[in-house]
Amino acid sequence: MTQQIQPTPETRLPVQNRLEAYAATATFDRPTLVLDVDRMEEQYHALKRGLGRADIHYAVKANPHRAILERLIALGSHFDAASRGEIELCLSLGARAEHVSFGNTIKRAADIAWAHSAGITVFAADCTQELDKIAANAPGAQVYIRLIVETSNADWPLTRKFGCDRAMALELLDYARELGLTPLGFSFHVGSQTRRAEFWEPTLAEMAEVWADAKAAGHALRLINIGGGFPAFYGEAIEAPTDYAAHVMRLVEEAFPGAERIMAEPGRGLVAEAGVIACEVMLASRKSERDMHRWVYLSIGRFSGLAETEGEAIRYEFVTEKDGGPTGPCILAGPSCDSADVLYEKRPMHLPLALEAGDRVLIRNTGAYTSTYSSVCFNGFPPLDVIAI
Amino acid sequence: MTQQIQPTPETRLPVQNRLEAYAATATFDRPTLVLDVDRMEEQYHALKRGLGRADIHYAVKANPHRAILERLIALGSHFDAASRGEIELCLSLGARAEHVSFGNTIKRAADIAWAHSAGITVFAADCTQELDKIAANAPGAQVYIRLIVETSNADWPLTRKFGCDRAMALELLDYARELGLTPLGFSFHVGSQTRRAEFWEPTLAEMAEVWADAKAAGHALRLINIGGGFPAFYGEAIEAPTDYAAHVMRLVEEAFPGAERIMAEPGRGLVAEAGVIACEVMLASRKSERDMHRWVYLSIGRFSGLAETEGEAIRYEFVTEKDGGPTGPCILAGPSCDSADVLYEKRPMHLPLALEAGDRVLIRNTGAYTSTYSSVCFNGFPPLDVIAI
Repeated sequence: MTQQIQPTPETRLPVQNRLEAYAATATFDRPTLVLDVDRMEEQYHALKRGLGRADIHYAVKANPHRAILERLIALGSHFDAASRGEIELCLSLGARAEHVSFGNTIKRAADIAWAHSAGITVFAADCTQELDKIAANAPGAQVYIRLIVETSNADWPLTRKFGCDRAMALELLDYARELGLTPLGFSFHVGSQTRRAEFWEPTLAEMAEVWADAKAAGHALRLINIGGGFPAFYGEAIEAPTDYAAHVMRLVEEAFPGAERIMAEPGRGLVAEAGVIACEVMLASRKSERDMHRWVYLSIGRFSGLAETEGEAIRYEFVTEKDGGPTGPCILAGPSCDSADVLYEKRPMHLPLALEAGDRVLIRNTGAYTSTYSSVCFNGFPPLDVIAI
Repeated sequence: MTQQIQPTPETRLPVQNRLEAYAATATFDRPTLVLDVDRMEEQYHALKRGLGRADIHYAVKANPHRAILERLIALGSHFDAASRGEIELCLSLGARAEHVSFGNTIKRAADIAWAHSAGITVFAADCTQELDKIAANAPGAQVYIRLIVETSNADWPLTRKFGCDRAMALELLDYARELGLTPLGFSFHVGSQTRRAEFWEPTLAEMAEVWADAKAAGHALRLINIGGGFPAFYGEAIEAPTDYAAHVMRLVEEAFPGAERIMAEPGRGLVAEAGVIACEVMLASRKSERDMHRWVYLSIGRFSGLAETEGEAIRYEFVTEKDGGPTGPCILAGPSCDSADVLYEKRPMHLPLALEAGDRVLIRNTGAYTSTYSSVCFNGFPPLDVIAI
């Protein structure tokens, strides 16, 4: 399905596969994310081969498109849900409740009660207050305690928003049991886009100490949830998914002896490379004879799907019909009247000098964390469209 | 309509007006922006009294809610539209095409053609390429040239995304005429949330020089569009709207002698104070005994309406039912599993120590730039709901 495809007569874009060929030639009313569900399935199998006995709980928030969820359900994947809305979606498409974990550490009490009644059995928590809510609304539920990670080699280490420290984690295992809950073990997150498996080592070393401490304190730990962090290709080298996942699993098995159950929550690493956004150039201009750079404005911006360009964190790869000609630096911006809607300015992008209004542009590996970030109608622009081929 | 209202027996929130009383006591399924259209009308009259002969072109992007647009149409307001979608909305509600300007300097060629066919006569541009598009798709149209502002006292000066420099502006007037367009004059933007009228002075001095240069070069200038920048109250003192607008207009009349037509584009300054968001506390916790601050998680975050907290730019005012009791610093965050979904961390907020999950929270003066920024379904959360009372 992903063999090299020659550009069709209708496109001069240097497409690499069936997905890009479609995105280069189809007619779109507006910026559109095109998903190749077969490509996603290949990635699922590649990750699964490396992850071995670990259960894949797909992080639904990365892309909740129906075609992706349906395929994953058919493949036997499990799911990590961030909200009642995501749980409802998974269940409505046929996922079994025992395969869906409620992994957000911040849950509305009424949503916990609803999830419990819908058959969800596993919940995340990182503080006494959340355990109180779970005990009151999902009596007897299984819980895992999210740990904060102090060390990270990720491209984007997470903040302290999620997770508690080691001392509190052990107290929470006791507290959960006092509340009549069933504490299973721990979860953590190595950080988004951890590009090499060896980068997991310091985090795993830190988590392994908590695991050992908890066992030494007499806790019967059964579960380790290793979260996400599986990378996608955005131009910087990453390891092949099976090798990467297998390497991580060797480290995980060493770090958490006796873990009966291992959960992994790939999101980006599973779906990013199965998507490409088709958009167009709105305008390419200079505003002053003195300007060093051109400005290139696309029909998509930070508020219509490219939210992860905030702080220029992710640098996507762009494909245009003018590729191959001379290039030059440009500031790349979105189409809205919002001055914050600039994609790359500190590190300008190098794009063809011949780019002009109307040229189609593909943005590679945009299957994760794009469509759902899109605003409902900022500046009167409709949300990013999504289709699956 | 906005007289002081005593808290009703149902709420312990210290509400200040009818809008807040409603938001404090009504039942909501999810975070909801409540709009008081009468309050917006009062603000319209207050600004209009100060703006005198200037035409108000409401910046639709600030809040395109139907009730606001319908009321403004009834009041005779004109509109500044950022997209075909906003133009369609205004026209569908009864706005006259000659009262709607297409103010985005980045327009799709097909949208220019559509707007032209729908009767839109005034377009913005800041480069030759955009003028080419306008001439090709809206032959003979009126245009104004957007100038870049190098000096600003705004709370958030705009980037160089919009506007051209002085030398190019004069060339563009000539170029527009060569293309058969009708150049009317200039526009600029003093920067968002310019809190005091006197802060306009350096920008107006800079723009006045371009105006004088253009006249000296023989251009018959008829229009100056002074853009937005009219402030809303977010806790820091601002001037009363009529005084502020009248002061700005005195400066504008001095700066642009002979301007037949003056456009002003308030958005935030017109609707922000007419809205309040009702949400709730999801969780209030500490993650470590060593933590200096609590974390307070709300049911709304950066991706569900509070996008303007990016970089902690806007510090909203929060009202809770625990107000009046002891307070302490907290990091305030949204409910999603995204570590970037943190509202205030560098400068923690001081909120009541007694806050707990389920407590209702009102966020004041949130009528502008909230609902439309909301993501379609990030993390499975529905978009911010909006109702008008």
